[in-house]
Amino acid sequence: MTGTLTVSLDVMGGDHGPAVSLGGAAVALERKPHLRFLLFGDGNAFHAELQRHPALKAASEVRHCDVAVSMNDKPSQALRHGRGKSGMWQSIDAVRSGQAAFCVSAGNTGALMAMARFCLRTIDRVERPAMAALWPTMKGESVVLDVGANVGADSSQLVDFAVMGAAMARALYDLDRPSVGLLNIGVEEVKGQEEVREAGRILRDANLPGLSYHGFVEGDDLGKGTVDVVVTEGFSGNIALKTAEGTARQIAQYLRLAMSRTLMARIGYFLARSAFDYLREKLDPRKVNGAVFLGLNGLVVKSHGGTDAEGFAAAIEMGHDMAASSIIEKIKNDLRSFGTLGAETDRQAVRREEQ
Amino acid sequence: MTGTLTVSLDVMGGDHGPAVSLGGAAVALERKPHLRFLLFGDGNAFHAELQRHPALKAASEVRHCDVAVSMNDKPSQALRHGRGKSGMWQSIDAVRSGQAAFCVSAGNTGALMAMARFCLRTIDRVERPAMAALWPTMKGESVVLDVGANVGADSSQLVDFAVMGAAMARALYDLDRPSVGLLNIGVEEVKGQEEVREAGRILRDANLPGLSYHGFVEGDDLGKGTVDVVVTEGFSGNIALKTAEGTARQIAQYLRLAMSRTLMARIGYFLARSAFDYLREKLDPRKVNGAVFLGLNGLVVKSHGGTDAEGFAAAIEMGHDMAASSIIEKIKNDLRSFGTLGAETDRQAVRREEQ
Repeated sequence: MTGTLTVSLDVMGGDHGPAVSLGGAAVALERKPHLRFLLFGDGNAFHAELQRHPALKAASEVRHCDVAVSMNDKPSQALRHGRGKSGMWQSIDAVRSGQAAFCVSAGNTGALMAMARFCLRTIDRVERPAMAALWPTMKGESVVLDVGANVGADSSQLVDFAVMGAAMARALYDLDRPSVGLLNIGVEEVKGQEEVREAGRILRDANLPGLSYHGFVEGDDLGKGTVDVVVTEGFSGNIALKTAEGTARQIAQYLRLAMSRTLMARIGYFLARSAFDYLREKLDPRKVNGAVFLGLNGLVVKSHGGTDAEGFAAAIEMGHDMAASSIIEKIKNDLRSFGTLGAETDRQAVRREEQ
Repeated sequence: MTGTLTVSLDVMGGDHGPAVSLGGAAVALERKPHLRFLLFGDGNAFHAELQRHPALKAASEVRHCDVAVSMNDKPSQALRHGRGKSGMWQSIDAVRSGQAAFCVSAGNTGALMAMARFCLRTIDRVERPAMAALWPTMKGESVVLDVGANVGADSSQLVDFAVMGAAMARALYDLDRPSVGLLNIGVEEVKGQEEVREAGRILRDANLPGLSYHGFVEGDDLGKGTVDVVVTEGFSGNIALKTAEGTARQIAQYLRLAMSRTLMARIGYFLARSAFDYLREKLDPRKVNGAVFLGLNGLVVKSHGGTDAEGFAAAIEMGHDMAASSIIEKIKNDLRSFGTLGAETDRQAVRREEQ
């Protein structure tokens, strides 16, 4: 099947299961007709749903799996009862075996990460993969990582995140040397977590060919689009991401309230409705749905569990764009050429402890 | 002076110095005519500005100080050259000596915190004070702490923050038992930083009389107003606060762009302009300017360094409301009655280490 790109789907994952994952696949297929699908999950359960999308059915192969990972399973539980057998595992394994170029799941994040690490293994010296999201900014879009795969990260891991995030920005935005900032609580060099300051020193001194290190950025730089790539550990990154989503929803509600307060406001709203449509589009969280696990020997995209078909389609298209630009190979190359950095840091740390 | 409330101002602090601090004091005085002011700073430098506000001048006493703390001083530098002599120090010291009910500064946060700790000392067993901000929500307003005074916090400190934040919410919102949530990256008990999980266990088991422990909350719960008090360590708290500010600015820009795109949109905007005024008011960061240091033997309010007179006035009024409700006494009482908690945790920690 020359010219096609195969994606494996964890059909049963997410809050809404097959309705959203198959509905989303059908939408993505309309826009990218060269996509092909491997559908992993309970074939009996999604048979009826698949009938509703004849084009998708024609472009798909169903791989029945009896076991499903629940949204509430702990990663260890999911691994125990889902390894080898579940739709989540098998959709990842299809990437490992080369049957699919990438996999998409709206399932339980912790379980997906655990299975992906176990099945695909991390690249070279990467200790923990990161979850990278696209962040809409005043200037366009940035890559932000880690948005919640890990709690905490040492300086060497933050440097890895910077290298992987830059490779992703180069692949997606066609940039030679994306600018990279470390998220911190002040732009002065004396502020913040020691790990972040140390990562800043390493990145500045290294002057890497594949990225331009900008320095520290703060929370409000995310929306400004100050840099192409924002690097942080997963706890703060997840909180930043969800805070921004919450703030956007809050302001949308203020706006709805404001526009229904008086007759004049309602008339104004009616006249300006194309502008509000534009705004709605700008604020649509579904457009940027999808976070990608970076640092694995294979491409896994995590869709928001509560999204709809449109959002799931965006996650598929994100995976498509990254697979089409051979992101995994790029990251491997970059990590290899910058590979001495982390090792040096470790040696420095050992030296410090010996002193 | 019965019925009056005296505030000490660090006049030279902030990006705009006396123009904003005195302008802000004049605005606050209009709304709260019983305020009296001690003005600390370079009297020669702000003499002309003070002449512009005759009512403020009549309600103020100037205390000349030669030394000023710069916005770029490290806390240690500021302490070295500014202790005892600077306007920042003296405005805090006026609270210590009882001459002022609270102090307001738009100066360097780190220096202000260092001086406030040194001059006022922390309450009882509080190890590190926290910086608490008011967060506008869909339901009204919440207290969020720490928003950047500390990087990192152990479980015992997070519990202190919860107690202090609840006392603040009780004082400001007239609630008996404010709901308190711990900011985390998931609501499940198995997720997040160990310190946060441990603090959650302590708060749940303690079932304190002055607060109702809700459990974990996520970044998007901030805007929803899920709880009255959100507790987190300063790194994540600062990033959440600035991310929300940045997102609000970003959406305001989208809105401006949208409303100027077509003639119909511009007409609609004109008709609905009262609605947009309402929205602007809702999103005005100056309305919630001011963060308060909790855990000290005295009330210190930090204004945003870049705010204008309206914003500085809001910080003064925030201090006014908190001083009027005897917040420091409330916090002291609460910490005292819940005071065994932290000690127990410490003992548990010691026990764990011994095992």
